[in-house]
Amino acid sequence: MSKKKVVLAFSGGLDTSFAVKYLTEDLGYEVHTAIANTGGFTDEELEVIADKAKRLGAASHASLDITKDYYDRSIRYMVAGNVLRNGTYPISVSSERIFQAIAIIEYAKKIGADAVAHGSTGAGNDQVRFDLTFQILAPEIEIITPTRDMTLTREYEINYLRDHGYVADFTKMEYSINKGLWGTSIGGKETLHSEQTLPENAYPSQLEASGEEDITISFEQGEISAVNGKPFADKVEAIREVERLGARYAIGRDMHIGDTIIGIKGRVGFEAAGPMLIIAAHKMLEKHTLTKWQQYWKDQVGTWYGMFLHEAQYLEPVMRDIEAMLLSSQRNVSGTVTIRLRPYGYTLVGVDSPFDLMKTDFGEYGEVNKAWSADDVKGFTKILGNQMKIYHNVQRRNGKDE
Amino acid sequence: MSKKKVVLAFSGGLDTSFAVKYLTEDLGYEVHTAIANTGGFTDEELEVIADKAKRLGAASHASLDITKDYYDRSIRYMVAGNVLRNGTYPISVSSERIFQAIAIIEYAKKIGADAVAHGSTGAGNDQVRFDLTFQILAPEIEIITPTRDMTLTREYEINYLRDHGYVADFTKMEYSINKGLWGTSIGGKETLHSEQTLPENAYPSQLEASGEEDITISFEQGEISAVNGKPFADKVEAIREVERLGARYAIGRDMHIGDTIIGIKGRVGFEAAGPMLIIAAHKMLEKHTLTKWQQYWKDQVGTWYGMFLHEAQYLEPVMRDIEAMLLSSQRNVSGTVTIRLRPYGYTLVGVDSPFDLMKTDFGEYGEVNKAWSADDVKGFTKILGNQMKIYHNVQRRNGKDE
Amino acid sequence: MSKKKVVLAFSGGLDTSFAVKYLTEDLGYEVHTAIANTGGFTDEELEVIADKAKRLGAASHASLDITKDYYDRSIRYMVAGNVLRNGTYPISVSSERIFQAIAIIEYAKKIGADAVAHGSTGAGNDQVRFDLTFQILAPEIEIITPTRDMTLTREYEINYLRDHGYVADFTKMEYSINKGLWGTSIGGKETLHSEQTLPENAYPSQLEASGEEDITISFEQGEISAVNGKPFADKVEAIREVERLGARYAIGRDMHIGDTIIGIKGRVGFEAAGPMLIIAAHKMLEKHTLTKWQQYWKDQVGTWYGMFLHEAQYLEPVMRDIEAMLLSSQRNVSGTVTIRLRPYGYTLVGVDSPFDLMKTDFGEYGEVNKAWSADDVKGFTKILGNQMKIYHNVQRRNGKDE
Amino acid sequence: MSKKKVVLAFSGGLDTSFAVKYLTEDLGYEVHTAIANTGGFTDEELEVIADKAKRLGAASHASLDITKDYYDRSIRYMVAGNVLRNGTYPISVSSERIFQAIAIIEYAKKIGADAVAHGSTGAGNDQVRFDLTFQILAPEIEIITPTRDMTLTREYEINYLRDHGYVADFTKMEYSINKGLWGTSIGGKETLHSEQTLPENAYPSQLEASGEEDITISFEQGEISAVNGKPFADKVEAIREVERLGARYAIGRDMHIGDTIIGIKGRVGFEAAGPMLIIAAHKMLEKHTLTKWQQYWKDQVGTWYGMFLHEAQYLEPVMRDIEAMLLSSQRNVSGTVTIRLRPYGYTLVGVDSPFDLMKTDFGEYGEVNKAWSADDVKGFTKILGNQMKIYHNVQRRNGKDE
Repeated sequence: MSKKKVVLAFSGGLDTSFAVKYLTEDLGYEVHTAIANTGGFTDEELEVIADKAKRLGAASHASLDITKDYYDRSIRYMVAGNVLRNGTYPISVSSERIFQAIAIIEYAKKIGADAVAHGSTGAGNDQVRFDLTFQILAPEIEIITPTRDMTLTREYEINYLRDHGYVADFTKMEYSINKGLWGTSIGGKETLHSEQTLPENAYPSQLEASGEEDITISFEQGEISAVNGKPFADKVEAIREVERLGARYAIGRDMHIGDTIIGIKGRVGFEAAGPMLIIAAHKMLEKHTLTKWQQYWKDQVGTWYGMFLHEAQYLEPVMRDIEAMLLSSQRNVSGTVTIRLRPYGYTLVGVDSPFDLMKTDFGEYGEVNKAWSADDVKGFTKILGNQMKIYHNVQRRNGKDE
Repeated sequence: MSKKKVVLAFSGGLDTSFAVKYLTEDLGYEVHTAIANTGGFTDEELEVIADKAKRLGAASHASLDITKDYYDRSIRYMVAGNVLRNGTYPISVSSERIFQAIAIIEYAKKIGADAVAHGSTGAGNDQVRFDLTFQILAPEIEIITPTRDMTLTREYEINYLRDHGYVADFTKMEYSINKGLWGTSIGGKETLHSEQTLPENAYPSQLEASGEEDITISFEQGEISAVNGKPFADKVEAIREVERLGARYAIGRDMHIGDTIIGIKGRVGFEAAGPMLIIAAHKMLEKHTLTKWQQYWKDQVGTWYGMFLHEAQYLEPVMRDIEAMLLSSQRNVSGTVTIRLRPYGYTLVGVDSPFDLMKTDFGEYGEVNKAWSADDVKGFTKILGNQMKIYHNVQRRNGKDE
Repeated sequence: MSKKKVVLAFSGGLDTSFAVKYLTEDLGYEVHTAIANTGGFTDEELEVIADKAKRLGAASHASLDITKDYYDRSIRYMVAGNVLRNGTYPISVSSERIFQAIAIIEYAKKIGADAVAHGSTGAGNDQVRFDLTFQILAPEIEIITPTRDMTLTREYEINYLRDHGYVADFTKMEYSINKGLWGTSIGGKETLHSEQTLPENAYPSQLEASGEEDITISFEQGEISAVNGKPFADKVEAIREVERLGARYAIGRDMHIGDTIIGIKGRVGFEAAGPMLIIAAHKMLEKHTLTKWQQYWKDQVGTWYGMFLHEAQYLEPVMRDIEAMLLSSQRNVSGTVTIRLRPYGYTLVGVDSPFDLMKTDFGEYGEVNKAWSADDVKGFTKILGNQMKIYHNVQRRNGKDE
Repeated sequence: MSKKKVVLAFSGGLDTSFAVKYLTEDLGYEVHTAIANTGGFTDEELEVIADKAKRLGAASHASLDITKDYYDRSIRYMVAGNVLRNGTYPISVSSERIFQAIAIIEYAKKIGADAVAHGSTGAGNDQVRFDLTFQILAPEIEIITPTRDMTLTREYEINYLRDHGYVADFTKMEYSINKGLWGTSIGGKETLHSEQTLPENAYPSQLEASGEEDITISFEQGEISAVNGKPFADKVEAIREVERLGARYAIGRDMHIGDTIIGIKGRVGFEAAGPMLIIAAHKMLEKHTLTKWQQYWKDQVGTWYGMFLHEAQYLEPVMRDIEAMLLSSQRNVSGTVTIRLRPYGYTLVGVDSPFDLMKTDFGEYGEVNKAWSADDVKGFTKILGNQMKIYHNVQRRNGKDE
């Protein structure tokens, strides 16, 4: 009888390295490793990972490039919705996990795998993202999670690998770094408690520039289309260009204090110059091109979109409904925003857009205008106050003072 | 027959100076000037204004100090609600106007005035704030607005005053500055268009400090209670202290692009070191002490509260309902927040609170914990995904690919 | 010089009959009457109106049939959004007014009119609907409103018409009836005060059936597609069929207490068997085919859609964004609903749909199931309670009892 | 060594009868039975239950009367929030379970129990309500659920009881009825599928009255205060009186299609004449006494309150925040509502309230009024349309047709 096939989401780290050996040797699986790249890995890094898989004895290894898919199905809407979790955090790692999970399970179906495995522990959010996505898209495929189930120590895993002939450098870094296209998260001893922030050296990007520098970001119907006047057909490259410009100024650092899917508070540092600058510019452009109520409703659904994306509910059908609304709202969000960069911060300078609702001969704020008269505003005010007047009148009639 | 009495909201500026003379001479009123101070004026400034009223021939002049009232009825809730209009602007000038209007109309009722006058033009929001508040609280008192009704030029007003024996310096400043307890707004040629931001010298506060400095802000049930460990019984003084600390670093500058009450877009610069630091600290503290859904609902009603406050609807009874919710939400928002100041910006360092939901022996993010097992999370995930699984199952059964 | 052209929204009633003569004789216009039919008028009624226009001396008269347009751009979304204002009132007359206004102003532009006129008084909502729509879509065309501006009495208008050679029966009815495709509104002496409801005979439709009768309404992606198994390609005819079936049972009568655009409370009776049954059936079908969160968000935006449609803000661009979301949400809302009619009421019997999320082999409510175990639910419950447990734990630690 | 104590939530039904014996005999516990009455049981029924407990050999039995507590902490807010789940279902059984769970766990703490037991199966929502409430309020007390854990059949339990000397009539009824103060739920073969409704004879209350009858319900600050003019200091008795009046007309029957806590769709019939009439009357009174925006926001938070109450999240602190808002909103909700009852239905006749915002000399709907002029409305309309005019103007300028 032929061996059962398992697809393992493989990162080259200790847990998934252990899993290759364990699934092969102890559980008797034919192990097919796969890594789904959402834009956080370079070609060199992917080759190193492929090489590790090979050395560990994987039956095959696949690098699934889903960067564009990730942009089209997630980043695009996060920009449209100005999504910053808790007003702060671009949904970086958590949104990537979902699309990695989708890519892995579709690959598993494609190669006819009997099982799928991931290396998440039992303490965080990623296990929920992987399990949920796998179960929804392929209920017939078994899920295996050795690290979670056996609650193994690092020492045990390292020894097991050595005993099975695999030696590698698994030194634990002082700060755990998770780099992605839409931001890099940083965990360390400070993030385990509430009182301290990360030290300067915990951030992968360091301040390299000084003084001030103006850049421009252009949008076409809500999507980034040019940086400093240079058009980008490839949105992913545009994001990387903004990231590059901003990272030199150490822009986009902050600490996210979030409510995890499993209900506890968690703290994580991040740097995300690209996402922060793009969302800030986009939101500024919307302030000029959308009406008050468009902004109001976008905020409502955008907040929810971010929450559900973060909480592994990307496949909830309401997400498609929200995406439809966000997409509709972007029809006029075209124009160019100027941003002044400076060390650790930036200023939104201004906006140039043919859809700017301020740029009109219709009436100008603070100036006497032609489209209405002082009497019109007096009438407006009278009528606007009607219900409040009636209410307070009724209060007085009832001897209530309010 | 005795003259009719009018109470004039008097600032000492050109429009209201003109109004004193015009109401007295041309309309034959006994003019009682009044200024309602929400914390933006010093004693010296108030004396200068009183002196001007006297020189203009006002029958009486009153300085109404409503700073504490303004804090109790407005700032307190703006902090509780983390109110930043459009994610940016502390409702500075616009919230003050409402309480100034309330003070003026109550003073008018107290001294038995027949009319009340203000100097707003027909182009902005303030006219709505004054008219609406006056009409609601005293429908029987007539409203007179010479500047708006006669659309007079500055020259006309200056000449009229000179012809009536009053000479003063009414030079128009390059930037119009409106200083208040909860922020200073700045208008100028850049704010009339979309493309440019204000130059450095347009800001009243200039960068004076360099390097970094850690400060602490403490809260007791959502209200600021201490700064750098020094308790403040007087919340207004605490706000001023934070303002003082932050203004030296030129913190809290930004541009507000807003939708005015009368439906047009407007742009205004502001500096508000105190409000920005206090709200940032308060929000950070809430991230640690409130549950996810408390934060969600506070944001919903806080956003609305800010919009209505800004749009002259403070007297809408729904505002009292929202205040009740905000107040309830603050019962555990006590603790101390550390903030690192630096030129033009700041970093939220951390939080210390007995109500910190992170500070618990219950379960720690990223660590294996005692309160639940990996199997519990597996079960949780299974059930959490039920509706999505059923949905996608039904989709597949219907041959839909989603 | 040729005469200026005016297009008059003409109903054949007293106010607009007066307007034809007045605009022609006193103001010297060339008067082109037009009526925009949203489905409330029969061919015979339209002929009578055309004949009146002719007898009054209109230069031309046009019957604009916009019934299908009204369905496509409004009713479709009101059904998708289950729109009942204040939980009660299908936006009948108010939604029709908007599309009538659009048709009239586009007709005016088409024939090159200088002005447009309507017969609304200064007391209601319709004036706002007409003015606003006209001003937005054709700011260059003047608006004339004789009835509103001159506050004329009925006697004056009748006499004026007689003096100008036009005699007709303008007897005021005890109840003013406004019949439309999406419901009929009824005003009378009872609706002017709060205490009484309309008497039986005020309703145009009278109870004709007795006993009970089951009917079915089918939907395809949220749109009505069949009634009692008979397919309707023409949705307007399908609505009329449901109206006919329900009206015999005197179903869909109620009183709407609403907040008018101008801020005062208003009360109006209505009968709307068709809309009520269609929306009830549609909502029931959604309960079976949409997820919890899809329903939640649809309700949010549907409520807003109804409010803005009612309040003359159909042309707000946020309405297009909401329509996009509503449309997306309907992709699975297909199936057949059975309704049991009885005098003055109905019972929703049940639903048959291939997208029914209850109709699954996945797990059945109240039965032990295969998709998860009791332990899974225990784990789910443990994790679901995490944040509340932490909160109450922290409360106890702080000596707070809650 | 003395036996460990367990408190068992005891209903006298098969599952909990089995549990008494099983906990005593097989697990060796000292079993203290308790029933928490939220108003659904008569004294006679409670005596029968107490007698059963005694016969089964319980160490003690307690009847905990929490009806008033249930009203004060739950029904009061459900009325204030007009809570009908999915627009239909008064949160009857599900809200009672929470307060029963609270009473049971507090009793367990009071008598120093080591464990607490309930008879819920693994298929429904009640297990979550009990587990969650127990875990939150007494994390140190163990939870035992024999029926769920052992997935026993009815036959097994009946035989086990007989073998242990307890014989009773455990015939399964055709319809399972769950009677409570705030409504009675009804399950049966029709509710397991989507197509059929319950037959007439499934409802405990049968139509007894004919013709029509007007009743009045009075409210004081949102709480029911009188029925047919007779004051009720005891709100529970007032609810029972309305239930009695409406049940004779078979009012308040419907089918709830809900999303269970565990994510699957469920269907349950109910009759709830009292809740439906009280909420309908209360909502009508609010339409007259609250402003538009008060109603809007109450609906938002009321919907959430109902959802969380239903889903076992009563102890979420956000619920206290919502209660504060709801309470504030009720300050003027005082007055009397007349309702016309008829078989299977009712009509809201009208409202009489000193806080009626319609009852004002300020301006009357549909009549020319004194508080504002036609010109005021014209001005209002002009300004109200400003942003839409600018938007459509910009669209035209950009060659977009919308």
